Amino acid sequence: MKHVRFPGKIVMVGMGSIGQGVLPLIFRHIAVDPQQITIVTADDRGRAVAGEYGVQFIEQPLTRDNYAGILTPMLAAGDFLVNLSVEVSSVALMELCQAQGALYLDTCIEPWPGGYTDPSLTYSQRSNYGLRETALALKAKSAGGPTAVITHGANPGIVSHFVKRALLDIARDTGKPVAAPKDRAGWSGLAEMLGVKTIHIAERDTQVSLTPKRPGEFVNTWSIDGFVSEGCQPAELGWGTHERHFPADGARHETGSNAAIYLMRPGASTRVRTWTPLAGPIHGFLITHNESISIADYYTVAGADGSPRYRPTVHYAYHPCDDAVLSVHELAGRNWQQQTRQRLMVDEVVSGIDELGVLLMGHAKGAYWFGSRLTIDETRHLVPHNNATSLQVTVGVLAGMIWAMENPKAGIVEPDELDHERMFAIMTPYLGNVVGQYGGWTPLEDRSVLFPEDIDRDCPWQFKNFRVV
Amino acid sequence: MKHVRFPGKIVMVGMGSIGQGVLPLIFRHIAVDPQQITIVTADDRGRAVAGEYGVQFIEQPLTRDNYAGILTPMLAAGDFLVNLSVEVSSVALMELCQAQGALYLDTCIEPWPGGYTDPSLTYSQRSNYGLRETALALKAKSAGGPTAVITHGANPGIVSHFVKRALLDIARDTGKPVAAPKDRAGWSGLAEMLGVKTIHIAERDTQVSLTPKRPGEFVNTWSIDGFVSEGCQPAELGWGTHERHFPADGARHETGSNAAIYLMRPGASTRVRTWTPLAGPIHGFLITHNESISIADYYTVAGADGSPRYRPTVHYAYHPCDDAVLSVHELAGRNWQQQTRQRLMVDEVVSGIDELGVLLMGHAKGAYWFGSRLTIDETRHLVPHNNATSLQVTVGVLAGMIWAMENPKAGIVEPDELDHERMFAIMTPYLGNVVGQYGGWTPLEDRSVLFPEDIDRDCPWQFKNFRVV
Ligand SMILES: NC(=O)c1ccc[n+]([C@@H]2O[C@H](COP(=O)([O-])OP(=O)(O)OC[C@H]3O[C@@H](n4cnc5c(N)ncnc54)[C@H](O)[C@@H]3O)[C@@H](O)[C@H]2O)c1
Ligand SMILES: NC(=O)c1ccc[n+]([C@@H]2O[C@H](COP(=O)([O-])OP(=O)(O)OC[C@H]3O[C@@H](n4cnc5c(N)ncnc54)[C@H](O)[C@@H]3O)[C@@H](O)[C@H]2O)c1
Repeated sequence: MKHVRFPGKIVMVGMGSIGQGVLPLIFRHIAVDPQQITIVTADDRGRAVAGEYGVQFIEQPLTRDNYAGILTPMLAAGDFLVNLSVEVSSVALMELCQAQGALYLDTCIEPWPGGYTDPSLTYSQRSNYGLRETALALKAKSAGGPTAVITHGANPGIVSHFVKRALLDIARDTGKPVAAPKDRAGWSGLAEMLGVKTIHIAERDTQVSLTPKRPGEFVNTWSIDGFVSEGCQPAELGWGTHERHFPADGARHETGSNAAIYLMRPGASTRVRTWTPLAGPIHGFLITHNESISIADYYTVAGADGSPRYRPTVHYAYHPCDDAVLSVHELAGRNWQQQTRQRLMVDEVVSGIDELGVLLMGHAKGAYWFGSRLTIDETRHLVPHNNATSLQVTVGVLAGMIWAMENPKAGIVEPDELDHERMFAIMTPYLGNVVGQYGGWTPLEDRSVLFPEDIDRDCPWQFKNFRVV
Repeated sequence: MKHVRFPGKIVMVGMGSIGQGVLPLIFRHIAVDPQQITIVTADDRGRAVAGEYGVQFIEQPLTRDNYAGILTPMLAAGDFLVNLSVEVSSVALMELCQAQGALYLDTCIEPWPGGYTDPSLTYSQRSNYGLRETALALKAKSAGGPTAVITHGANPGIVSHFVKRALLDIARDTGKPVAAPKDRAGWSGLAEMLGVKTIHIAERDTQVSLTPKRPGEFVNTWSIDGFVSEGCQPAELGWGTHERHFPADGARHETGSNAAIYLMRPGASTRVRTWTPLAGPIHGFLITHNESISIADYYTVAGADGSPRYRPTVHYAYHPCDDAVLSVHELAGRNWQQQTRQRLMVDEVVSGIDELGVLLMGHAKGAYWFGSRLTIDETRHLVPHNNATSLQVTVGVLAGMIWAMENPKAGIVEPDELDHERMFAIMTPYLGNVVGQYGGWTPLEDRSVLFPEDIDRDCPWQFKNFRVV
C-alpha cells in the first residue's frame, strides 16, 4: 500500500546494509519511479540491488571538498536527500538541503572521517552530545523551512516512539490512564508523574551464521565501520535527576543542554546490566547513541528556578549478535585498532531474533520492556535484502521519509517530536511481535553473592547498580 | 613406544574429556593390560571409549561418604589412582593413596562440591591458594612415601616445564648461558639473575565448530564444570617483588607461603592484556590456577632476613575458544548462575589451534613466549578422542604417570619439582610446534590513545599495566 506520492528526486547517499534494505520499502510504500532515485556511494556494495530496482548508482565517495559540488546540482526545492552513509558529515548535508529547499533524513549524526576518534578533538567534540549540539544549532533558523528528520533509524529513531507507547501502557496499568499528550511538556510530565527513573534501549540480537568468526575479522549484522566508530566514542548517557553517585570517570559538557554526561572511556569497553523478556538478565555495551541524549533532553522537566527537576537516565545497553561480541572483545585486545577484515551478515544469517526495545524502570510496576521482536525468518518473509536488524532500521527510515513528505515544512526535527501514532501505523507491519512486558527484574538481583559489591540498595535504579565493574 | 611397564592396577576417577583422551596414550606408552584398568565415574560419558579399549567402566559418583568404601578395596600398595574428575576432593583421594601405598596423580586440586563457590567459606578457603595449602600440609609426612604427582595437566602441569626451557633459552640468548640447574635454589636464582618480572600462562584457543552457541548453553573445549568453577573462584596471582601498586580489590592470605594474592572478584570477570606469537595482543581472563601460585612460590628467593628478595608475578591470561568467551559473557550476565546446557566440543571442532605457552617478561630481551602450538588436524593425526586442548593436558597426565612409575617413592610433588627434560622427552611428540619467540610487546603498547589511562610508564611489567579496567 502506498502511503504517499512523491514527485521530486530522491538522492540516497550510501548503499550499505541500510541503503539496500530500504529500497524495496520505498518502492512498496511511496509512489515514486526508479528514475526519480539516484544513489551516491563510496564503493561497489549494493550495485546489484540498485540494478534490480532500476535505480541509478554512482560510485563516488563524498568528501569535505567535493560534496557540495556533487550534490547541489542534484537537489532542488522539494527533492529529498536520504543520508545512509558513514564518514559523511550529516550537518554538512543538512545545511546543504536547508539551502536548497530539499527534504532530508539520516539515521545518525555522522562527522567527517576521524570525527569520532581524532585524539586532537576534545571528548565533547568526539561525543554524540557534541554532534547533536552542532545539529541543534541549525534548528532555530530551520523553523518553517524544509523538513529534516534527523537520527530516524531504529535507535536512534523508532525507540523514541516505543518510549511513548510504554509510558501510555504504564499509565494504564498503574491506574492512571491518560490520553496521549500532544507536546513535549505533556510527555515529560507524564514520565515524571509515573516516576520513570531509568530508560535503557535494551537490545539482544541473537542472529547467527554457520561461518565462525575468524581471528582478525569484525562480524556484525549492520555497519561495521559504524559500530566501531560509535564503540570508540566516549560512553554517553542521559543523566537523570535521581542519580546520587556521579561516576568517578564521568564528566559533564561545558555548553549545551546538559542533559547527558560522558565517561572517559570507550563505550565498547563499558558494560551494563540490562534485561529483555526473551534474554533475561544480560550484559550489554553502553555504546553512545543520539537517543540517549535526545530522549533525556526531551523528557526533562524544569523546576521553578529553571534547573531540571526531573529527567530520566537514558542509555543504550546493547548485546549485539554473538559474533560482534567476539569482535568487540578482539578489538579491545587490539587497543581499538580496527580489524582489517569485515563481514556484514545478511544472507548468511541462519537463525535469530533482534529483540529491540526500551526498558522503563523505577515506576510503580518496576520495569517495563516495550519493543519489537523480529526473527530472521519473518524478516525474509516480509522484505528482501534485510536481516532482522536492518529491517527495524529501514522501516524507521521509511516512516521518517513519509512523515517528512507529509510534513514538508517542519524544519529540523528529532524523533521525539514526530507523531508516534502515525509512525506506528507505517512501521507495525514490519516489526514482528510488538510486545510490552513487565519484568520483576532489578539490577540488584543475584548481586553480592560470591563477592561483596559496591551497590546502592536504597535505590535499585542508580546507574552505579547497572554498571559492570 | 612403551616408556615403562606397570604391573599394578590403575583406577581412573572421571571419564570426561581428559579421561577419554588419556586412555589411548596410556595404552600406547605404558605396558599395561586393559584388565588392569578400572574407571569410576559419575555418568555415562566415556563409556563407549572405555569399551573400545576393553576397560571396565563403573558408573558410581564418589561422595564424601562413599569414596573410601569404594576406592579402598580397589587400591593396594603399588597401584595407581589417576584422578581426572570434578567435584571429588583431591586431598581426600591423595590421603587415601598415601595410606594405601598407591601412586596418585591429578590435574587440579579439586574440593568436594561447593568448595569453589560456597559463600559461607572465606575467600582464602575458596581460593586455589587455600586448596594448595591443604595439599602441601600433607607433603612433609609424605616424604619417601608413595609418589603423588599433583596438578600435572597442561596448566597446571607442563607449563612449569615450559618456564624452565624458557629460562634456559633467555640465558643463552642474553649472553649468559647456563647448564640446567639441579634444584629449586638454582632455578629461582636463574630467574632472578635474568630479571624475569612477570610470567603469564598465555593461551589462545582458536578452535571452532560449525554449530553456533545457543543462548543458555556453555560451550568449551574442556570441562565446562571445571571452567565455571575456577572462573567463579577469586582471581589469583603470584605476587612479584617488583610490584609497586597493590590492587585496590586485592587481599593477602593470612597463613601459608604468601606467594600469591587474590582479588575480591571472580577470575572470569577479570581481564588482562597478554600476547602470544600467533594472536598478537589480546585480552585474556585472569582465571585462578594452581600454577600461578606454585610457580611464584618455587621461584621465590629469600633475602638475608628471610623475607622474599625476588619473586615473579605469575598468572593465567586465558583466551579460551571463542564460544567459551561468549559463554563467560553470558554467565557474567546471569550473575554467575551456571547455564543449564553444556556442549564440550571434541569431534565437532572443524579448525583451530591451541596456542599454550608461558610469557616471560622483564628480562633483557623484553618478552619471550615459549610453548606449544597444536592444531586440531595434527591432534587428530596423533591420537584419537582428543582435541588440541585436551591433548596438551593428556600428554601431561601421561608424562606425570610415567614419572611417578619411574620414581615411586617421591611423596607429594608439584610439577616444578619434576625433571623437566624427562617430561619433554615423553611429551614432545604430542605438542605440535614447540616454539620460543621474542616479542617487542609490552602492555604499554597503544595505550592512552583515545582516553587517558592510569598506567605506570616507569615499569611496563607492573600488574596494573596488564589489567583491563
Ligand atoms: N539509527 C539506527 O538505528 C541505525 C542503525 C544502523 C545503521 N545506522 C547508521 O546508518 C548508516 C549506514 O549504515 P549501514 O549499516 O548501511 O552501513 P554500511 O557500512 O553497511 O554502509 C555504509 C555505506 O556508506 C557508504 N559510504 C562510505 N563512505 C562514503 C562517502 N565518503 N561518501 C558516500 N558514501 C559513503 C559506503 O559505500 C556504504 O555503502 C551508518 O551511519 C550507521 O551508523 C543507524
Ligand atoms: N591442568 C590442566 O591443564 C587441566 C586441563 C583440563 C582439565 N583439567 C581438570 O581435569 C579434570 C577433568 O577435566 P575434563 O575436561 O575431563 O572434565 P569433564 O567435565 O569433561 O569430565 C568430568 C568427569 O568427572 C566425572 N565426575 C563428576 N563428578 C564425579 C564424582 N562425584 N565421582 C566420580 N566422577 C565424577 C564426570 O562423570 C566426568 O566423567 C577437571 O578437574 C579439570 O579441572 C585440568
